Amino acid sequence: LAETRAERRLAAILAADVAGYSRLMGRDEEGTLSQLKAHRRELIDTKIAEHRGRIVKTTGDGILVEFPSAVDAVRCAVDVQRHMAERNSPVPQDRRIEFRIGINVGDVIVENGDIFGDGVNIAARLEGIAEPGGICLSRSAYEQVKGKIDDSFIDGGEQQLKNIARGFDGGGGSDGVAMVALTSPRSINPLEESGRSPDWIKVKNPDAPAATRVIE
Amino acid sequence: LAETRAERRLAAILAADVAGYSRLMGRDEEGTLSQLKAHRRELIDTKIAEHRGRIVKTTGDGILVEFPSAVDAVRCAVDVQRHMAERNSPVPQDRRIEFRIGINVGDVIVENGDIFGDGVNIAARLEGIAEPGGICLSRSAYEQVKGKIDDSFIDGGEQQLKNIARGFDGGGGSDGVAMVALTSPRSINPLEESGRSPDWIKVKNPDAPAATRVIE
Repeated sequence: LAETRAERRLAAILAADVAGYSRLMGRDEEGTLSQLKAHRRELIDTKIAEHRGRIVKTTGDGILVEFPSAVDAVRCAVDVQRHMAERNSPVPQDRRIEFRIGINVGDVIVENGDIFGDGVNIAARLEGIAEPGGICLSRSAYEQVKGKIDDSFIDGGEQQLKNIARGFDGGGGSDGVAMVALTSPRSINPLEESGRSPDWIKVKNPDAPAATRVIE
Repeated sequence: LAETRAERRLAAILAADVAGYSRLMGRDEEGTLSQLKAHRRELIDTKIAEHRGRIVKTTGDGILVEFPSAVDAVRCAVDVQRHMAERNSPVPQDRRIEFRIGINVGDVIVENGDIFGDGVNIAARLEGIAEPGGICLSRSAYEQVKGKIDDSFIDGGEQQLKNIARGFDGGGGSDGVAMVALTSPRSINPLEESGRSPDWIKVKNPDAPAATRVIE
């Protein structure tokens, strides 16, 4: 019986895309593509390999990466966003390529090198709500990295409830999830102890000026 | 820098030991050892291999197993406990070898085939609180399997708060964790929505008579 079952493995799934890609392409198609290729070649692909990630697939502006370790996935994301901020600093604001990154931990189904399951879908949803230059972690990803990475970049903010529908292989229905951004790793404890345990953590752009850090 | 870092990977960690091992050994050392070896050879090692587990180490009565998938780890544990109940049914109660099993998901450090980290420590703690013939899952393990396994064996019960100290590579301090047993997969939702999200789930012995299923 076990032989006919899908192959599964625990993985940290990183989904990233370019914020405002259509706008950038509408303005300067060739320039945007060549910039994007340079970022991939000179920074992103190197960082992914360095942190033992595997590129599962790419779309026009998107990339799906699988890491054996959540700690490595988050370190890679922080590394990429920090370097992207440096690379962007001389570029006018409206021409910057800024990535939004979502990271989740999931027991995914593996088939011919591709990965499937709600673990993948949730990573894509988190990417969608990350701010440009920022990272959004699910609770299951955050729980695997807390205390194991330098998370002084995790920024403070307010809490908000949202719904993430379960993926196609989930139990159906939707889960209540909470969005939380933190001033410090310590500030998560009161929330957890009060029972308002967050389901995902929004990590602010570490290089954004303080004035832009407020979460609406 | 990344080259000198510890190798990490996400894994489902299964820890099991024999309930009342000292008592059994005190009563019949050779008989207990030979029974245990037979269970290992005829059932446990086969099931572990079938579900793609890797035996990391064994102690006298204990075993530590790593699975790439949490779903596979839980399926293996349920499979083993169901077969153990069958094998035990003709044996007098006080001579039965009954396993307690704990399962956790963790981003563990891998070194020379051994695994380290609080992910491993927590699996051992969960094993310690599992009932004989039962399985105890951490929240992070349960969240990876819910909706993906036949969890009709998850039994109902009450909720209780305990502390599990963080392991040596954790952030220090302790996390509030809740023990929850469930009558059905659906009954977890009201708990989660009310914010009283459990940190671990106790799975009762699936073959225990109903009268013994109440959790005190």
